[in-house]
Amino acid sequence: MVNVRIFVTYKQSVFDPQGETITEAVHALGHKEVKNVKVGKFFDVEIDQTVKKVEESVKEISEQLLVNFNLETYRYEVMEEA
Amino acid sequence: MVNVRIFVTYKQSVFDPQGETITEAVHALGHKEVKNVKVGKFFDVEIDQTVKKVEESVKEISEQLLVNFNLETYRYEVMEEA
Repeated sequence: MVNVRIFVTYKQSVFDPQGETITEAVHALGHKEVKNVKVGKFFDVEIDQTVKKVEESVKEISEQLLVNFNLETYRYEVMEEA
Repeated sequence: MVNVRIFVTYKQSVFDPQGETITEAVHALGHKEVKNVKVGKFFDVEIDQTVKKVEESVKEISEQLLVNFNLETYRYEVMEEA
């Protein structure tokens, strides 16, 4: 069993309105030391497979389901192998 | 400048309907090797402060704004210091 974390973020060129709003709210709380906030999603996926074959599963799941490639990009990390 | 990533997840005891739905959709795509999917959010925060003082900022921002402690929990990682 392999635990993978897939991170999905907006592409650099895409405006992140939620992040902007949070940055403003953080400033309103008095935390002027915070310069920028960006928001992302992650998916913790438990896969019953060898680490070698995990890449293919992650790629397919991400491309077919989790990621909107018009706006988003992704990367992943193998968290642990059991 | 310190870059911090704050991870917000549902507590263990809280049902994650989005994760359940995604798990089913992944199975419908034929990926039976995927046993479980859980969903979380993360916030990449750029803080103009020393690493030492970052903990306090992160704690306050998380508790006052980012995390719903009824349902969620959080942790954070210092990604890089510049």
